[in-house]
Amino acid sequence: MSDRFSATYLIETGADVASVADELAGEQSTSTSRRVPLETEELFQQYRAHVESIEILGERNEPSLGSIEKPYPVYRQARIVVSWPTHNIGNSLPMLWTTILGNQTGMRRLSGIRLERIDLPSSFVSETLRPAFGIEGTRRLTGTAGRPLIGSVIKPNIGLVPEQTAEVVRGLAESGVDFVKDDELMSNPPYCPIEQRVTRVMDVINRHADKTGKKVMYAFNISGDADELRRRHDAVAEAGGTCVMVNLNSVGLAGVIALRKHSVLPIHGHRAGWATMTRAAMQGLDFSPFQMVHRLAGVDHIHVSGLGRKFWESEESIVGSAKACLSPMTEELEKDDRAMPVVSGGSTIHQAKPTYDKIGSKDLIYVCGSGIMSHPMGPAAGVRSIVDAWEGVISNIDLRSYASSRPALSAALEHWPEPNVSESA
Amino acid sequence: MSDRFSATYLIETGADVASVADELAGEQSTSTSRRVPLETEELFQQYRAHVESIEILGERNEPSLGSIEKPYPVYRQARIVVSWPTHNIGNSLPMLWTTILGNQTGMRRLSGIRLERIDLPSSFVSETLRPAFGIEGTRRLTGTAGRPLIGSVIKPNIGLVPEQTAEVVRGLAESGVDFVKDDELMSNPPYCPIEQRVTRVMDVINRHADKTGKKVMYAFNISGDADELRRRHDAVAEAGGTCVMVNLNSVGLAGVIALRKHSVLPIHGHRAGWATMTRAAMQGLDFSPFQMVHRLAGVDHIHVSGLGRKFWESEESIVGSAKACLSPMTEELEKDDRAMPVVSGGSTIHQAKPTYDKIGSKDLIYVCGSGIMSHPMGPAAGVRSIVDAWEGVISNIDLRSYASSRPALSAALEHWPEPNVSESA
Repeated sequence: MSDRFSATYLIETGADVASVADELAGEQSTSTSRRVPLETEELFQQYRAHVESIEILGERNEPSLGSIEKPYPVYRQARIVVSWPTHNIGNSLPMLWTTILGNQTGMRRLSGIRLERIDLPSSFVSETLRPAFGIEGTRRLTGTAGRPLIGSVIKPNIGLVPEQTAEVVRGLAESGVDFVKDDELMSNPPYCPIEQRVTRVMDVINRHADKTGKKVMYAFNISGDADELRRRHDAVAEAGGTCVMVNLNSVGLAGVIALRKHSVLPIHGHRAGWATMTRAAMQGLDFSPFQMVHRLAGVDHIHVSGLGRKFWESEESIVGSAKACLSPMTEELEKDDRAMPVVSGGSTIHQAKPTYDKIGSKDLIYVCGSGIMSHPMGPAAGVRSIVDAWEGVISNIDLRSYASSRPALSAALEHWPEPNVSESA
Repeated sequence: MSDRFSATYLIETGADVASVADELAGEQSTSTSRRVPLETEELFQQYRAHVESIEILGERNEPSLGSIEKPYPVYRQARIVVSWPTHNIGNSLPMLWTTILGNQTGMRRLSGIRLERIDLPSSFVSETLRPAFGIEGTRRLTGTAGRPLIGSVIKPNIGLVPEQTAEVVRGLAESGVDFVKDDELMSNPPYCPIEQRVTRVMDVINRHADKTGKKVMYAFNISGDADELRRRHDAVAEAGGTCVMVNLNSVGLAGVIALRKHSVLPIHGHRAGWATMTRAAMQGLDFSPFQMVHRLAGVDHIHVSGLGRKFWESEESIVGSAKACLSPMTEELEKDDRAMPVVSGGSTIHQAKPTYDKIGSKDLIYVCGSGIMSHPMGPAAGVRSIVDAWEGVISNIDLRSYASSRPALSAALEHWPEPNVSESA
């Protein structure tokens, strides 16, 4: 199989599962409804997709998704694996995507289809761009080690002019954060043009770095068209910035790849809109292939939500997403192709332990909102308390014991005695 | 509202609908979970999204989508309209998308959210690129009038080398088609490099045009990253080609806009993967906002499936999609911003009448596969029969009467006496 890639689908159909799987393989490769002259056996041999396996899972009485297909008495769910020769797509990620999540999703006889995973041969992976910075590069640029990067986000999300944004950054830098990001809703509005925001914010960050030796990584949201992405990237790089952010689903693969080819900075990938691709059980896709295609395109940081219960997603799903970003895409390559998971959404001192216990890694960007800003002793104590909490957790020391000699953590525990139910980050 | 844009959502929640709508407006604009110093009343006034209306539709006992939110006894469905000031996003389409279909789709208290439509002020629309060719430009390049463009697609979908592709094109050109397209699975594989395909195919098309005066429009699938899109576009333009095709969902908005800014040719937009964004009733989006954002980005032709029952979608939905592409985006502008719907999927002589009756327009690209290739008298008669069928339909003459003096249509009716149930195009 070394020259083939494969996709695993959860499918549902009222028709014969094997026949539908075969139709899917045909629809996404050589098939035509009626044989045409050039459709030879040799062409089939070389280009046809194969159904590698079918596992029947269960059944239900109602179809999950709408279709003009006639009603059936029972709908079977199955997991199928389909493979393609890599020469069908060359080394193209957009064409990988069209092949694995294209017209088959609209097949009439399918009442459900969800992409669960993709498996790629090393030969394909090695020709992709993949993260230029990843974990090691991000740590190098931020001078952090042994614990997650502690980050925060500009609040309010939108509405601040460049000067005000820079003032918020000044406060966060002085509080000791490693990382700050724009909100995903903030890119280049007329009241806060990106070039001016870059100039003002980097002035604060560069001065702070000159004074303290610590350079805060700021992820500027440069989301725009491909030319804007490159031009704004250049503005960030010229001002001494160390990170650019893109809304992956609003920009798309062609834009992300264009940026990656041009970029000299880590790319911070926000997944706004991801929920609409994944919440319906029998439609869309799992996070595993989503993060994979973006790592192949060269994204260094990928948002995975957080354990603070801000959004719809279960803890198990969030932990799985973070682990996916931290899993090498192939065992055969020397290059580290992992992305750094961005744990964001209701993160406070209380999520440090479950986050570390369940994800099992320190190589995270841990983004806190009010867990930093609303600390009773101020934001600097807020950052200190989060760092303390992580140090305690990594040393396997109980939070309350560890807090006894640490006033910032102690005050945070007094202020927030219980894990939060809903926070914003 | 002239400086505001709005989105209409179908939502479902077990919680209070008004409270959830308000949370959505906050999440997508100024909100933070805890008030921060710069979150002033003035900022709210200027940047906060507004809930414009709420219409309660009905209720159900089970949530449509998964969430960690506690189970409720009943889930209400409602249609809500939310508006934002345009200065929140400037004139950016990627930021429009992040705002209308971003983090709100993952709200815990929502058990369903589907984007139904967007309404944009003329001031926003007039700053977007929009189709450079559209209906008029496409008709001019193909020399067609008074009936749909009759098109076909290369079969088999994949596996042909450039020389073979050119041979198929030769047959189609000689048969009299107006339009031919690559399959969405065919872009630039190693066995059929796009530059070589362009050279070979355009040689056939240019020779045919020199001989007959009729230049077939060939939509070359140039899907790739932003640089590849432009480079391949240039190869097509230099060879005298008149159309480029992109897989919209695999390329993304940043790539489509980059291409549009650069392009001197109509952009043919394939929607492979669209089904996975729309089939679940309470997730994703309707076709109306999907086609709109791509027209704003400058796509000239947009696939809407066909009435030949190839895919899952109902006739009503397909007809609505085509009508959406043919509706001006604003009444206040001089520029024609309509896109040409591509009716593809099981199209034969029999779909001409329902397509014309229901969509009510001749300004379509009508793409046929076996309806042309499998005609008993050969492809030229296949094309002739489709043209005849459309001429009859437009003149409001019964297909069988019209066929009496037209052997190609007559033979087609004998070969395919009944509307097809499943064809491929």
